[in-house]
Amino acid sequence: MEKVKQYIEENKDRFLEELFELIRIPSISSLKDHKPDMEKAANKLKDLLLSSGCDKAQVMPSTGNPVVYAEKMIDPAKPTVLVYAHYDVMPVDPVDLWEQDDPFEPIVKDGKIWARGADDDKGQGMMHIKAFESMVKTDSLPCNVKFMLEGEEEVGSPSLPQWCEENKDLVKADVILVSDTGMIAPDIPSITTGLRGLSYWEVEMTGPNRDLHSGLFGGAVANPINVLAKMISDMVDENGHITIPGFYDDVIEVSDKERAKMAEAPFSEEEYKKAIDVKELYGEKGYTTNERTGIRPSFDVCGIWGGYTGEGAKTVLPSKAYAKISSRLVPNQNNEKIAKLFKEHFEKIAPDYVKVNVKFLHGGQAYVCPIDLPAYKAAEKAYEETYNRTPVPVRSGGSIPIISEFEKILGIKSVLMGFGLEADAIHSPNENFPLEQFYNGINTIPYFYKYYAEIMK
Amino acid sequence: MEKVKQYIEENKDRFLEELFELIRIPSISSLKDHKPDMEKAANKLKDLLLSSGCDKAQVMPSTGNPVVYAEKMIDPAKPTVLVYAHYDVMPVDPVDLWEQDDPFEPIVKDGKIWARGADDDKGQGMMHIKAFESMVKTDSLPCNVKFMLEGEEEVGSPSLPQWCEENKDLVKADVILVSDTGMIAPDIPSITTGLRGLSYWEVEMTGPNRDLHSGLFGGAVANPINVLAKMISDMVDENGHITIPGFYDDVIEVSDKERAKMAEAPFSEEEYKKAIDVKELYGEKGYTTNERTGIRPSFDVCGIWGGYTGEGAKTVLPSKAYAKISSRLVPNQNNEKIAKLFKEHFEKIAPDYVKVNVKFLHGGQAYVCPIDLPAYKAAEKAYEETYNRTPVPVRSGGSIPIISEFEKILGIKSVLMGFGLEADAIHSPNENFPLEQFYNGINTIPYFYKYYAEIMK
Repeated sequence: MEKVKQYIEENKDRFLEELFELIRIPSISSLKDHKPDMEKAANKLKDLLLSSGCDKAQVMPSTGNPVVYAEKMIDPAKPTVLVYAHYDVMPVDPVDLWEQDDPFEPIVKDGKIWARGADDDKGQGMMHIKAFESMVKTDSLPCNVKFMLEGEEEVGSPSLPQWCEENKDLVKADVILVSDTGMIAPDIPSITTGLRGLSYWEVEMTGPNRDLHSGLFGGAVANPINVLAKMISDMVDENGHITIPGFYDDVIEVSDKERAKMAEAPFSEEEYKKAIDVKELYGEKGYTTNERTGIRPSFDVCGIWGGYTGEGAKTVLPSKAYAKISSRLVPNQNNEKIAKLFKEHFEKIAPDYVKVNVKFLHGGQAYVCPIDLPAYKAAEKAYEETYNRTPVPVRSGGSIPIISEFEKILGIKSVLMGFGLEADAIHSPNENFPLEQFYNGINTIPYFYKYYAEIMK
Repeated sequence: MEKVKQYIEENKDRFLEELFELIRIPSISSLKDHKPDMEKAANKLKDLLLSSGCDKAQVMPSTGNPVVYAEKMIDPAKPTVLVYAHYDVMPVDPVDLWEQDDPFEPIVKDGKIWARGADDDKGQGMMHIKAFESMVKTDSLPCNVKFMLEGEEEVGSPSLPQWCEENKDLVKADVILVSDTGMIAPDIPSITTGLRGLSYWEVEMTGPNRDLHSGLFGGAVANPINVLAKMISDMVDENGHITIPGFYDDVIEVSDKERAKMAEAPFSEEEYKKAIDVKELYGEKGYTTNERTGIRPSFDVCGIWGGYTGEGAKTVLPSKAYAKISSRLVPNQNNEKIAKLFKEHFEKIAPDYVKVNVKFLHGGQAYVCPIDLPAYKAAEKAYEETYNRTPVPVRSGGSIPIISEFEKILGIKSVLMGFGLEADAIHSPNENFPLEQFYNGINTIPYFYKYYAEIMK
């Protein structure tokens, strides 16, 4: 492994520059205007994969943004690792909260890369390509490797399931390796063993057929913003329980023993509150903060708008109000069932004086990775090499809906080797990724291949 | 009066063209960018008042937009009428809901003028200038006339009270005549005898110090949109009562006798619902629709925004949420007291996991005009001339905060001779004003002067 380490050390500046070239393509999947950037990013990755040592690489069409597929097959008798990552990123608004002028022009400051996608998932994805290159160029690759890089993860991977169905043989592998999650702290490695599922809706509430004068009509005609506020408020009770009938039916209560083990993970509520500057935390009664995000579902309004939102005071009783609403789900909850339950309930509780339209935008299943999986063991040992500490298995509150789809469609388990940190501000202004984590990732991943090949022998 | 009528008939096209010239100046008082348009509109009015027969006219500075003052004094022994109107208009958004490309380029279609300000209050204000011209040019003016035209009515007339304090002698008059209200129907004249007051706030709710990933934090950190929705919802109880302690303390309950008289005004709930396309009406329990807008206060969210409001799905737990909130008040409620009660209550019910900031944007007192006032009687007889029907006294739900200020500062009562119709869509897209109402107004107003001079003799 010394040769690999040396190769990484000698090429580290180029690795960073290659990441910057990818970051500079503003591949925001949720905005139609950025469609051409998706093609650009996919082609850039194809070139990178070929120059990094893949035998073949191609930009393949899907029903949405293209999928980049590449491989290096060294021996059919050896295990095959399928690397999954995504080249699309979240929108950058509110842009004025970024400390840099252009979120797509990466800056290195205070030992960190600052840019949209620095961590999620261009930075973490690039670690795999460069770790792979370092093994190939030093003749140290012990497994077959396949890459499957998609451009729709941030909008719920709507096209990849069908693409997987159609390319089952092509992506056949023993395990899927993913770096799209985080570690507890820079000195405490962890492996994500659980992911929450997600259902995401947009609701449209219509009161009167036009904006009305709030004086002439106010008090006599239901205001759709007031009604929407009440309905949102009624979705969660005073104990933080979601009130949709049947919502918790499939939630598996985690045993006291497992909860006790979770509680051993280092966590300071004071530091957590300080980091986000809130005086008190709020969540479901009877659960700790880590349980609330790890093993319990949530109900959040991600966006709301309606009426006059400009400067000054306009006295209006608006015609419309809108909200984007999401629920994070836990293992065994079916996101399509939950999507339906919400829609039915929301329509049912809507009073006669408004019309509601509930649109299901996207969803995904929760996922669990057993800690006795050979690939989990290999990942554990790989982290130990870099961090001198056994990684903690963690249930994350985040969602990567496609991970459970992989299991369903391809029958392959995924191992989530994340190197992100909480302070990376993914999905927020000032996303960043510490240089140390970027290079630690590139150095750790070759050990995964080494141990995985040994265990699977 | 035949000469006046004939003059109006002969000059009607020019009157309309003069109104159009005024409408074309986009004098939106709530938007800073339109500051130059306020000056432009004021100067246009000064010129119009001079050419219409005023002896003097001037654009006078105030602490905000200028006030246009003009007069024609014919005889100190005769009564003096002070005409009040406003040359500022509401914003035009959402622009895409207008059927015409430019809301400031008036169109005549289906017998109506379509434009922002067509009714409120350029159209209705112009009626007074042209009625005045018609009396002057035919030597029929029986009273002294003063004009006081302001440019901040739509933002609550913040500067006019001080201007009135400083110009008490200048505007001295026996009555203030205003056309900034409506009639029940095109064939049922009415005079507004009551106006609601208003308090208007903007609230800012801050949760975490930055937008958070709704997966990693959702369920453990209070979402400011969810909290704002709950707080808004809690401001009104299941009976439609506003829950702010002390809110109703100064509301005078209207007697059953007066309520019975109000109920005689023609009103079809079915037509009302049909016109705004709602299945059911909603308001305070125990009151009819007209009572809810006429004699009861209201609580409306005029605008709300926060989090991700763009295309598609962004999973975010936002840092901020905002709302613009207003209450219409009834006579004897003090808007400053209510403003304070709301702020105190809203801050008090805010949970520890958010920070709130309540900003009072503007307010105004409610107003009542007694129906035995000489000027009311003159107005009544004037409408009878045009509509062959005694006008109905009506308590309006709208607010003209400055009207109660006039009484307080100048000691002068106002008579509200409105010619607007409900379908005029003031404050909304597609504002319009029927040509017939515009010309009926110009023809009716000279009768007011005639009867007022006779009664006051």
